[in-house]
Amino acid sequence: MIFSDPASVAVVGASDDPSKWGHWLARGALIGRSRRAVHLVNRSGGLVLSEPTVRSLSELAEPPELVVLAVPAAHVPAVVDEALAVGVRGFVGIPAGIDDRVICRIREAGARLLGPNCLGVFDAATSLHLAWGRFQPGSLGVVSQSGQVGLEIAGLAAASGIGVSRFVSVGNQADVTAAEALLDLVSHDLTTVVGVYLESFGPGIVDALAQLRAAGKPVVLLTVGASVAGREAARTHTGSLTSSVDVVDAACRRAGAVRVTTPAALVDLAAVLSSGAPRGGRVGVISDSGGQGAIAADLVVAAGLTVPGLSAVDDLPVGASRRNPVDLAGAGERDLMNYARAIEVLVRGGEVDAVVLSGYFGSYGSDTPSLEAAEVAVASRICALARETPVVVHSMCAESAAVRALRAGGVPVQLTIERAVAALGHVKRFGSPPVVVPSGATPVAPYRPGYLAARDLLSFVRFPEARAVASLADIAATTLRPPYALKADWLAHKTEHGGVAINLSDPAAAFEDMRARLGPGTYVLEEMDTREHTVELIIGAKRDPSFGPVVLVGAGGVHAELFRDTAIELAPVSSATARDMLARLVCAPLLTGWRGSPAADVEALAEVVAQVSETLAARPDLAEIELNPVRVGPDGVLAVDALIVPLNDTSGQRVA
Amino acid sequence: MIFSDPASVAVVGASDDPSKWGHWLARGALIGRSRRAVHLVNRSGGLVLSEPTVRSLSELAEPPELVVLAVPAAHVPAVVDEALAVGVRGFVGIPAGIDDRVICRIREAGARLLGPNCLGVFDAATSLHLAWGRFQPGSLGVVSQSGQVGLEIAGLAAASGIGVSRFVSVGNQADVTAAEALLDLVSHDLTTVVGVYLESFGPGIVDALAQLRAAGKPVVLLTVGASVAGREAARTHTGSLTSSVDVVDAACRRAGAVRVTTPAALVDLAAVLSSGAPRGGRVGVISDSGGQGAIAADLVVAAGLTVPGLSAVDDLPVGASRRNPVDLAGAGERDLMNYARAIEVLVRGGEVDAVVLSGYFGSYGSDTPSLEAAEVAVASRICALARETPVVVHSMCAESAAVRALRAGGVPVQLTIERAVAALGHVKRFGSPPVVVPSGATPVAPYRPGYLAARDLLSFVRFPEARAVASLADIAATTLRPPYALKADWLAHKTEHGGVAINLSDPAAAFEDMRARLGPGTYVLEEMDTREHTVELIIGAKRDPSFGPVVLVGAGGVHAELFRDTAIELAPVSSATARDMLARLVCAPLLTGWRGSPAADVEALAEVVAQVSETLAARPDLAEIELNPVRVGPDGVLAVDALIVPLNDTSGQRVA
Repeated sequence: MIFSDPASVAVVGASDDPSKWGHWLARGALIGRSRRAVHLVNRSGGLVLSEPTVRSLSELAEPPELVVLAVPAAHVPAVVDEALAVGVRGFVGIPAGIDDRVICRIREAGARLLGPNCLGVFDAATSLHLAWGRFQPGSLGVVSQSGQVGLEIAGLAAASGIGVSRFVSVGNQADVTAAEALLDLVSHDLTTVVGVYLESFGPGIVDALAQLRAAGKPVVLLTVGASVAGREAARTHTGSLTSSVDVVDAACRRAGAVRVTTPAALVDLAAVLSSGAPRGGRVGVISDSGGQGAIAADLVVAAGLTVPGLSAVDDLPVGASRRNPVDLAGAGERDLMNYARAIEVLVRGGEVDAVVLSGYFGSYGSDTPSLEAAEVAVASRICALARETPVVVHSMCAESAAVRALRAGGVPVQLTIERAVAALGHVKRFGSPPVVVPSGATPVAPYRPGYLAARDLLSFVRFPEARAVASLADIAATTLRPPYALKADWLAHKTEHGGVAINLSDPAAAFEDMRARLGPGTYVLEEMDTREHTVELIIGAKRDPSFGPVVLVGAGGVHAELFRDTAIELAPVSSATARDMLARLVCAPLLTGWRGSPAADVEALAEVVAQVSETLAARPDLAEIELNPVRVGPDGVLAVDALIVPLNDTSGQRVA
Repeated sequence: MIFSDPASVAVVGASDDPSKWGHWLARGALIGRSRRAVHLVNRSGGLVLSEPTVRSLSELAEPPELVVLAVPAAHVPAVVDEALAVGVRGFVGIPAGIDDRVICRIREAGARLLGPNCLGVFDAATSLHLAWGRFQPGSLGVVSQSGQVGLEIAGLAAASGIGVSRFVSVGNQADVTAAEALLDLVSHDLTTVVGVYLESFGPGIVDALAQLRAAGKPVVLLTVGASVAGREAARTHTGSLTSSVDVVDAACRRAGAVRVTTPAALVDLAAVLSSGAPRGGRVGVISDSGGQGAIAADLVVAAGLTVPGLSAVDDLPVGASRRNPVDLAGAGERDLMNYARAIEVLVRGGEVDAVVLSGYFGSYGSDTPSLEAAEVAVASRICALARETPVVVHSMCAESAAVRALRAGGVPVQLTIERAVAALGHVKRFGSPPVVVPSGATPVAPYRPGYLAARDLLSFVRFPEARAVASLADIAATTLRPPYALKADWLAHKTEHGGVAINLSDPAAAFEDMRARLGPGTYVLEEMDTREHTVELIIGAKRDPSFGPVVLVGAGGVHAELFRDTAIELAPVSSATARDMLARLVCAPLLTGWRGSPAADVEALAEVVAQVSETLAARPDLAEIELNPVRVGPDGVLAVDALIVPLNDTSGQRVA
């Protein structure tokens, strides 16, 4: 492929000035000269990096397959025109500000462009080094929308020992997209784990992430925007409760990827994944210092993992505590191999899924050179054990022979305990991507405004008995049972506009008052839900601009908003996924029998969540659906209000 | 002072074997020989570190003031006896396992002991280096209950450039306590900020922290135990909602200190504090890369700080974005001084309290040596600006001339953006220690069991009208207004034992039923609170084993427990502090007029919190006080149930 293993490359703008991009790119290109022809182009001619140059691409006997544009943007049009004329098939566009018409000409000629405004491409498998920066060959595939963030990831990957298998700075994605660059990694053998930085999410991203996951290559996603306030004015509570980052997390769960918030978190997680991820959340903690072990244990638990009690501890070194965290209490210093012995006891015991070793190990040899060989031997033993059960090491020493031996053997080593533990904490967020089998039973009725029409469209959920009423005579003739609610059918946000009255025993007065204020129209008289032991929730679905339909379930009333107690997934979801969403809510204990209350009908509730999600996914004419509140008790689900917003709704109604 | 600047020291157990403690301690002691006599004691005699030794302390012409015990624990008794006989006044006890009787002999002789089971003491002001490890002189005073955690802190302090002014490993605190070691730092001139690691909290700690704070030396506290589950079985909800770490945080607020969870967090925060802490939470973010700036901005907001919009941006470098985060967009690479210019614009603009510079700066000189001098010049300019408004730098380069220049100039530099931002996030947790002026109006009535007695003791809060009833005739004769509640006076946990019935219009049947189940006794007929627009909370106070009385306020009903929505302080608190506690609750918006509801009487509520706290603090005969629920509305506070647990209560009643 042209951006993976071109037969020949030319760097246009090659320079001897070490502060110029053309210098770095020429130097990098020459690294691959044993595999491919490398041409340096400099309009002044002469030698660059002691190599001969040509003044223009036309001087070359054969056209290079791939051209690196390392000239100022103003010079790019002429270079591209010449390149296309001689038959160049691919461009790496380094500078920002390349004219759109030039990009069009490249695409019209059937050639491909990486960038513009990118840092280039690196491929360890083919000695292709057409990028700014230094890369240590390794196993992490990097695709980045920001060159500098990509470079930071590559630098941290080098320091941590995992290294980079392939690096693609996609820049402005004028032609080659991030999704395309990600799909290239599916069959890229050196790549065992993928890190991607994205600021926007085009079509195909979720599919590309899922294909990587299916190929056994876990993806760690870094994105931004969690702090950006001004999201679109919400028309429903569902909208106001669904941040863009929540939706990215939902997309990651759908694709089997995990989102992190910093380059270091990405690299640390990748390092754990590339050396074999723990299969569960039980962590054994070992230290020669009770304090460092306790600090590590606190962090492990704060990361959502457990520090389980141990039963198979008889073979722990003499003097060590017989509990988790294991405090070697000086036994490690007494005999360095006791570190490996303690790890072995935990690995063989089968009671933990990962081991964290925290503290002084890694420093012995640098503090006392006579101990270096013994420490390296212990490190080798730890690496062998880590192939059975993952081990992560926090060492007070940044760099030593033992630290290098651990990293070379695939054991991540961190200078701070928080980086060692955080990566383990993220691993458990990799779940199996959910299988979605929509029921197909989606409503076909056209959208009509109003509460009664919404009840009809969402007929899969039970509502209280209700009647349209337009007069006092209608009310007098009702066969519904008190207490009643009275609602103005046409108002989207009834409470805020005085269009709802509740707990009515004699609704006539409320009707007269409401009609006097809001005018004639369809009003709805509705029975109140008087069941005991019910829990209120909100269920909603909306269309996300990047990822399409999403579904939300949250704690009812003030709690979703005050306590941000919500769960969000890409829609549609199966009822199994909906059950998972409900179980994630902080208020989940209320559903399963809190303090002696009877359990609510969670199955029925999950089914409603699934159907709401399917309805929005199957109905491109709808923007949002909201059931709020939904009341669930032991005898099932009752939706007490409903709102449907059609696409391109111009009514201008907003949540207060 | 004997552990700060002894006139003479002797290292007993001095050794030439570099893997032995006696080697390190002898080497360290000799560093101070220009200031004090240093004697090396080795029972085999001969040279150690090319210095002559004596075989025992008795051979010395004059007794050393301070003796370092670097011999195995078994040899300690003989050494100590000899030392006391010749008049030694102080000991640094390195080994664990020193016999308690030896410790008693030291104390009885009026001498002092640091340790045992400690790493020793270091003082940069007096060249006193009687500790394992290497120390870079600086401004951070370290007191640590774990030697190794202290050593990790010292190592990170060296790497970050802040260095250590004094290091005291207090070990088992058999004589010298952590509180004492902390108080020594109050007048220790080199120390400008204090880091302390504690696993337990003896008397005097809060006072020592407060004295340091009053001396202008902020304290960062590292402790453990957040993950320890098995806390004492709770007798009240207050007890079950008050974790040991919550109480440590309360003690820190009382003393004006801040708790962190890792050594790196401690050192990073200390580095920010020692170079001048930001006065507010507004952060300007600058990067040459939009991606890195956005990542930093997300972290800043996640840390509870703000990234405010900027108005004074006209002088930003050409090409830079005119918003916060400031994206230099290549202007930094084009002219390195643009980094400093952008910082200057933010500093002069006065719209931010701190600046985070994130990304490539610090790497230019190491990637392109010809840029090194220019980069160092920019670093110097940044250091000057940082003296006006604090600057923290995240650099992709771990070590370079520019990075060193920044650190030397007091600007913290971190390799990961999370460490750069986390420290700023912690700074805002330093508040002014609250001033507590108890009202003195504490109840003097003796404790009596039961609900009615609790109401009497807590008469500062209003309860619903109530009458003791023992018969149907009492109920028939009541002048209270319905609806009623009926309660079994003597039950601490009425709900769990069927001892409460509510919403009664005719209480006779409920009375007969309850008396049939629970037997004769005092029952309480009480009016129900039927006010609208009330918010339920829990107010409680208990006695913490380490810190004494604490007070808690939390969201009512299920929310305190499900959502952990509580605020805890050491008792007593003033009503001003109580208002702060209420404002910290996630449910605080419910109190101040949520969605058009009238605001609750927060002043009255705060007064009740303060009085509950004062009552427990002033009544050593009481273990716990709980008002649960308390209902507050626009017209004041009503406590709907109360529970008082006396100290040494053996009733065995526990919260279900």
